Amino acid sequence: MSSLRPPPPLLYEPIVVAALREDLGRAGDQTTESVVPVEAAAGAHLIARRPGRVAGLAVAARAFTLLDPSVQVDLRSQDGDDVGAGAVLAVVSGPARPILSAERVALNLLGRLSGIATLTRDVVASVAGTGARVACTRKTTPGLRLLEKYAVRVGGGSNHRFGLDDAVLIKDNHVAVAGGVAEAVRRARAGVGHLVKIEVEVTDLAQVEEALAAGAEVILLDNMSLEEMREAVLLVGGRVVTEASGGITPENAAAVAATGVGVLSLGWLTHSAPALDVALDVVVS
Amino acid sequence: MSSLRPPPPLLYEPIVVAALREDLGRAGDQTTESVVPVEAAAGAHLIARRPGRVAGLAVAARAFTLLDPSVQVDLRSQDGDDVGAGAVLAVVSGPARPILSAERVALNLLGRLSGIATLTRDVVASVAGTGARVACTRKTTPGLRLLEKYAVRVGGGSNHRFGLDDAVLIKDNHVAVAGGVAEAVRRARAGVGHLVKIEVEVTDLAQVEEALAAGAEVILLDNMSLEEMREAVLLVGGRVVTEASGGITPENAAAVAATGVGVLSLGWLTHSAPALDVALDVVVS
Amino acid sequence: MSSLRPPPPLLYEPIVVAALREDLGRAGDQTTESVVPVEAAAGAHLIARRPGRVAGLAVAARAFTLLDPSVQVDLRSQDGDDVGAGAVLAVVSGPARPILSAERVALNLLGRLSGIATLTRDVVASVAGTGARVACTRKTTPGLRLLEKYAVRVGGGSNHRFGLDDAVLIKDNHVAVAGGVAEAVRRARAGVGHLVKIEVEVTDLAQVEEALAAGAEVILLDNMSLEEMREAVLLVGGRVVTEASGGITPENAAAVAATGVGVLSLGWLTHSAPALDVALDVVVS
Amino acid sequence: MSSLRPPPPLLYEPIVVAALREDLGRAGDQTTESVVPVEAAAGAHLIARRPGRVAGLAVAARAFTLLDPSVQVDLRSQDGDDVGAGAVLAVVSGPARPILSAERVALNLLGRLSGIATLTRDVVASVAGTGARVACTRKTTPGLRLLEKYAVRVGGGSNHRFGLDDAVLIKDNHVAVAGGVAEAVRRARAGVGHLVKIEVEVTDLAQVEEALAAGAEVILLDNMSLEEMREAVLLVGGRVVTEASGGITPENAAAVAATGVGVLSLGWLTHSAPALDVALDVVVS
Amino acid sequence: MSSLRPPPPLLYEPIVVAALREDLGRAGDQTTESVVPVEAAAGAHLIARRPGRVAGLAVAARAFTLLDPSVQVDLRSQDGDDVGAGAVLAVVSGPARPILSAERVALNLLGRLSGIATLTRDVVASVAGTGARVACTRKTTPGLRLLEKYAVRVGGGSNHRFGLDDAVLIKDNHVAVAGGVAEAVRRARAGVGHLVKIEVEVTDLAQVEEALAAGAEVILLDNMSLEEMREAVLLVGGRVVTEASGGITPENAAAVAATGVGVLSLGWLTHSAPALDVALDVVVS
Amino acid sequence: MSSLRPPPPLLYEPIVVAALREDLGRAGDQTTESVVPVEAAAGAHLIARRPGRVAGLAVAARAFTLLDPSVQVDLRSQDGDDVGAGAVLAVVSGPARPILSAERVALNLLGRLSGIATLTRDVVASVAGTGARVACTRKTTPGLRLLEKYAVRVGGGSNHRFGLDDAVLIKDNHVAVAGGVAEAVRRARAGVGHLVKIEVEVTDLAQVEEALAAGAEVILLDNMSLEEMREAVLLVGGRVVTEASGGITPENAAAVAATGVGVLSLGWLTHSAPALDVALDVVVS
Repeated sequence: MSSLRPPPPLLYEPIVVAALREDLGRAGDQTTESVVPVEAAAGAHLIARRPGRVAGLAVAARAFTLLDPSVQVDLRSQDGDDVGAGAVLAVVSGPARPILSAERVALNLLGRLSGIATLTRDVVASVAGTGARVACTRKTTPGLRLLEKYAVRVGGGSNHRFGLDDAVLIKDNHVAVAGGVAEAVRRARAGVGHLVKIEVEVTDLAQVEEALAAGAEVILLDNMSLEEMREAVLLVGGRVVTEASGGITPENAAAVAATGVGVLSLGWLTHSAPALDVALDVVVS
Repeated sequence: MSSLRPPPPLLYEPIVVAALREDLGRAGDQTTESVVPVEAAAGAHLIARRPGRVAGLAVAARAFTLLDPSVQVDLRSQDGDDVGAGAVLAVVSGPARPILSAERVALNLLGRLSGIATLTRDVVASVAGTGARVACTRKTTPGLRLLEKYAVRVGGGSNHRFGLDDAVLIKDNHVAVAGGVAEAVRRARAGVGHLVKIEVEVTDLAQVEEALAAGAEVILLDNMSLEEMREAVLLVGGRVVTEASGGITPENAAAVAATGVGVLSLGWLTHSAPALDVALDVVVS
Repeated sequence: MSSLRPPPPLLYEPIVVAALREDLGRAGDQTTESVVPVEAAAGAHLIARRPGRVAGLAVAARAFTLLDPSVQVDLRSQDGDDVGAGAVLAVVSGPARPILSAERVALNLLGRLSGIATLTRDVVASVAGTGARVACTRKTTPGLRLLEKYAVRVGGGSNHRFGLDDAVLIKDNHVAVAGGVAEAVRRARAGVGHLVKIEVEVTDLAQVEEALAAGAEVILLDNMSLEEMREAVLLVGGRVVTEASGGITPENAAAVAATGVGVLSLGWLTHSAPALDVALDVVVS
Repeated sequence: MSSLRPPPPLLYEPIVVAALREDLGRAGDQTTESVVPVEAAAGAHLIARRPGRVAGLAVAARAFTLLDPSVQVDLRSQDGDDVGAGAVLAVVSGPARPILSAERVALNLLGRLSGIATLTRDVVASVAGTGARVACTRKTTPGLRLLEKYAVRVGGGSNHRFGLDDAVLIKDNHVAVAGGVAEAVRRARAGVGHLVKIEVEVTDLAQVEEALAAGAEVILLDNMSLEEMREAVLLVGGRVVTEASGGITPENAAAVAATGVGVLSLGWLTHSAPALDVALDVVVS
Repeated sequence: MSSLRPPPPLLYEPIVVAALREDLGRAGDQTTESVVPVEAAAGAHLIARRPGRVAGLAVAARAFTLLDPSVQVDLRSQDGDDVGAGAVLAVVSGPARPILSAERVALNLLGRLSGIATLTRDVVASVAGTGARVACTRKTTPGLRLLEKYAVRVGGGSNHRFGLDDAVLIKDNHVAVAGGVAEAVRRARAGVGHLVKIEVEVTDLAQVEEALAAGAEVILLDNMSLEEMREAVLLVGGRVVTEASGGITPENAAAVAATGVGVLSLGWLTHSAPALDVALDVVVS
Repeated sequence: MSSLRPPPPLLYEPIVVAALREDLGRAGDQTTESVVPVEAAAGAHLIARRPGRVAGLAVAARAFTLLDPSVQVDLRSQDGDDVGAGAVLAVVSGPARPILSAERVALNLLGRLSGIATLTRDVVASVAGTGARVACTRKTTPGLRLLEKYAVRVGGGSNHRFGLDDAVLIKDNHVAVAGGVAEAVRRARAGVGHLVKIEVEVTDLAQVEEALAAGAEVILLDNMSLEEMREAVLLVGGRVVTEASGGITPENAAAVAATGVGVLSLGWLTHSAPALDVALDVVVS
């Protein structure tokens, strides 16, 4: 499936290189370089220690080959696969030094991204049958938004805005300063290009009506009760996309989805997903 | 206390700037710039929605002033404070646009770092009285190691290596390729400077003895049972630092610490700590 | 008006710094540093030699103050002003050396951006009364898209996509590979988030119908004759935004706008606008 | 001819990479990645839609291969070629996604550089037989000076200074502060190395004499009438290079060259050359 | 020997690339590009004009291949070799242009690093038999610490701290502010991780005792007389590492080593080592 | 004197920032941050321990203020001053931590640049009365060329090319490939702009004649004997600048200058000048 490919290497490789430099520091891997002869070879299994959904496998594998292009990585799994504990995700082979030195960076990337994909998958599963999309937010790790948003897609989720510039989201403060939903939408429509969508955050049914009338293209139901959400969804009647946000957790996602809302957005997916436990089992020869 | 200061701005400001650019994208905050007049002013409270330990407050505050130096941030709390739900951590005031535009970056940094500090604090509290230190690992977020290690210190924890270059940690693979603990330590000692400490990972008591004899300065007890750890600690008898690692969680930390081991290291502190829920309550005028 | 502010300095200052470094090279301004004493002061008028619309004045002014913060720049005009030949746009004063050394960079930026704004203004004027928006494209100068898109807005124009990632534009090749407009739109809708708009390029009326049926949110009429455009606009009947593109020039823009199309997009605005002739009249003392 | 090679990739590739990142943004090409399967292949013709002189073809081609090294680009033309409308400049083949995603960056570079080369060629042709060189100035696009100066050479033109550091150009303000041409040249000669040439801007015949006497190695005739230029050229009598600058356009270049001046410099070549119309005709399979 | 390998290319290549860009400037090698045809081939010998120890050969060789990957470099020597005047260190072949253009950068790197290695070798030889290590300091060239510390190792020397962060070195000012050696060591021990060594600078025997009692792991004897050093070494009695620093030169190193001190550190090795005279003998064909 | 100013901060500050980051590493100054309270203040004298010529004082001082803008640096000397042992060059005061942490970077820069200026001064003095200029070469430290060339000027020396792009220097290999001096000069003249000087390296009198005839603007006498140089100088007769290069050392410079040659160039000035011994005497309070 096309959505399970990571973004172009041109976009994510700087992240991997920076992570390697952060770990190697000024002096490199002092342990490996003093203990392991340069001619030593190694084979290694990249494994999942816990069950989960794989995400970022090719990204993580680049840690080895960016450190030393002669390392071979044979992927045995691919992003989007659901694997069990002990599954071999990739086989790494080549000179021992770069394999040992790049291990932690590869695992940090793979663990974090797979952790996000796994949690997303579970939330998506919990809303199955409702037709609701599960989306992430801008509550991502500084510097990793590109990859974390990708991991959400691997988990079956959907992406909200990538930043402040690719869509308009009018919140309560914007409404307050503009003097109302209608005026805020009008200003936004006048100020942005015709390819920028406008979403408005509302907190009650009156605002839903106002937002619809003003031409909002997406309506964000902010911290509403389940009952209010149901009414709002009915009121909108499919004319525009509805989104629920605020206080949604993996636990209550199903109940929210049952209101008929079109999209659920959870910061949880990216800011609090535990890492998937992954490891590298190395055999040096 | 001196340990509660963040690292010099020269080291962490590039992280904040990169996070702002990641969020602003190419076009900047289209919502705010089209809806909020440039002359609008705002006041805002940076608050904790849940109880926790504050970390990274000054770092997060830089998001506002790096975007616009005319924004004022008045810190009402400081790193290391334990605060309750609703606590006002800082008061932000000035032009409304940069306050609204920098909000998410500031919250993402503060939430993540405070989340790590809070979890660390809790684990440290759980081992109180044992004399054991609680340390983080290299299982940090790519690009944020500097700040995450700082957050651990704010939580009362201690830092393990910052990378592969500032200490030697001889693991099983290194031992295997060297043909034994003694030879591995000898190679490391010959290869690195006299200010680099050498730690050796061991899995049984025989290796503890071997490591001691070889001159290891720290001994890492890897995935040992509590009983084995107790015996290892006795065997070492305070001659060098002992560290327990592998499978330690917030839940079992106290039991591990009770074995008398000197340091507990947990990847959990940095790779899986949930973010602290923080928010910015803005009033635009 | 809010739309006439340049993007945050955090986004555009790297462009100015890079331009200064490009011009100063390794050795700096050898002429000025060898001929002009360090204590010499200067006053200068930044002027328009030809009539036009000012854009990028504050951006250009940063060239002086980034080179030396003690230079004073007093803006006498602002972005969006229509000025005559000889108009004084700013008064620059302070140490003579940085004023002379930064002159060319400031003028290069101001001339280019004002040139774009001036041409855009003229095209916008030519379609006055039709209700059509005049938009730029992605045919911008590598590295300057941010500023060139801003200059278009200063000229009264509107911005199309900022890049490949902030909206979907399905072109003929995408349609061909998907096997039809409907399938292409379906794939895009499934693959992108709910805040991403989908535009479809069509070349005849049948495709207009197909695109409407498929749920396209914007329809791009590609290289159609004026007659075809008129029919297409009628067919769409205001249900979605229509955009004309391909072969539109400052000369024929009015005729295209008269078809009733909603948006005209011209690469011309950014790839071929002549620079406005601006100069710095310096008096060294 | 050796002068028709672009500068080393080490110097220009950062420009291409930055342009790709500017266009791909954070999320990459959302249209192509959602609509075009990863296994789709494409063939494409890079064509000139209008007649002109090709410049930057290899530079533009790097957009494809930097995005994906498996794309093949077969150049059918080379920098310096004069081509007709419809000429196929290169054939691009390989995976469809990177070809579609890199298209705009490649075209933006090729169109701009070929536009400059084409205009330069025409101006050079207009002065044929006079022996005058046609040179560009420092009125280049910020960040692209390297490539734009190369495009001028491809057009048969010559390069003036690359920046403020590689030659001395004493202008009226420098003369004023030094108290005369002689003193300004003396200061410059004392202050710069023996491999740096000194050019002096003059506005009348008296200054020409003064500059010659002072040892100027190039004399810039600034905004002189054709008659004054003729006299100045006679006065200099071939002892040093003469250069005409100020108000020279493609239209009046021939008349200026007929005065016998050695070099004509025109900012026009780089700041106002319209882009050459180039396109990529893609066939996806 | 493993210690004679340079650090990973990921760490040192940015230094080589920056050096190439520094030398090529904006316009590249104007001499070679105008005089040498693009198709000319060349062969070249990289030679030592004086006897010395080779260091940085592979690093220097990257200058050629980073400028043009088609250049071949056949290493005839390796880091750590002691060579005589005229020795051929490498044979370079391929297109003439990049060989001529990268020559100076390659030689600058090789000359400097080999100069450091050669001087270090000589100092190490002068203390042969004493068991003392010869170490460098942080008195390195800004930006080249990584490579200069490596060159010291190639010379048979040892590395002191790589920076302020990888070990604690308590100097007189730190002691003064803490109110004594014991308190300074206590604060450091509390403030840093268990893998960070603590060294204390002392100036007399009383401080030696105090440092030992406080748990210092390395004792730096600062600017002591030879007699004092001997006494200090006896007093320490092998319990911790002793280091002599301050005023040590290649000339007096042997006398200092004879005191029995464990490590001698000399800023001289990196801040004042003369470059080894190396050259590239090119034959263009 | 104007030539004693360092280049604009925009050009050299990145070097200082990079040096600070190189020294602070990931974790910052662990000693100072754990031992010295954040509120401690300090005063310090930046002193010369040996006599020499000061160069780079303002550059070095930026290390303190870039690390912490609240540090005050009061310059008591300026670049170009000849100072005796013990001279106080600057007084530094403010918070103790950044003063202690930036010390080494400041000293490394000041020591290296002053070492170059001091050696240059001595060589310049040794040729006093001959009228010869003393110039450096491109044999500079990678990354520091800008500052090292400046230090040479502070020492009273002159700068040769800053890189491969700002002047033409035709060497033996270029002559060989072109088939003679005349053809090489002709190609260069045709290929480069009218503001680029052309220097030709010659090894005998015949080549001197050939170079003059070909229009060389500077003639480099390569590794000639003193007698040959004298003859060459006579032959040239002041028509162009003559430069001696190859094997010139501080010791034989006077003899070379006595031949009447116009410029002496020595790589020695930058690649082998010993650092000046400078120190920071700190008093923490």
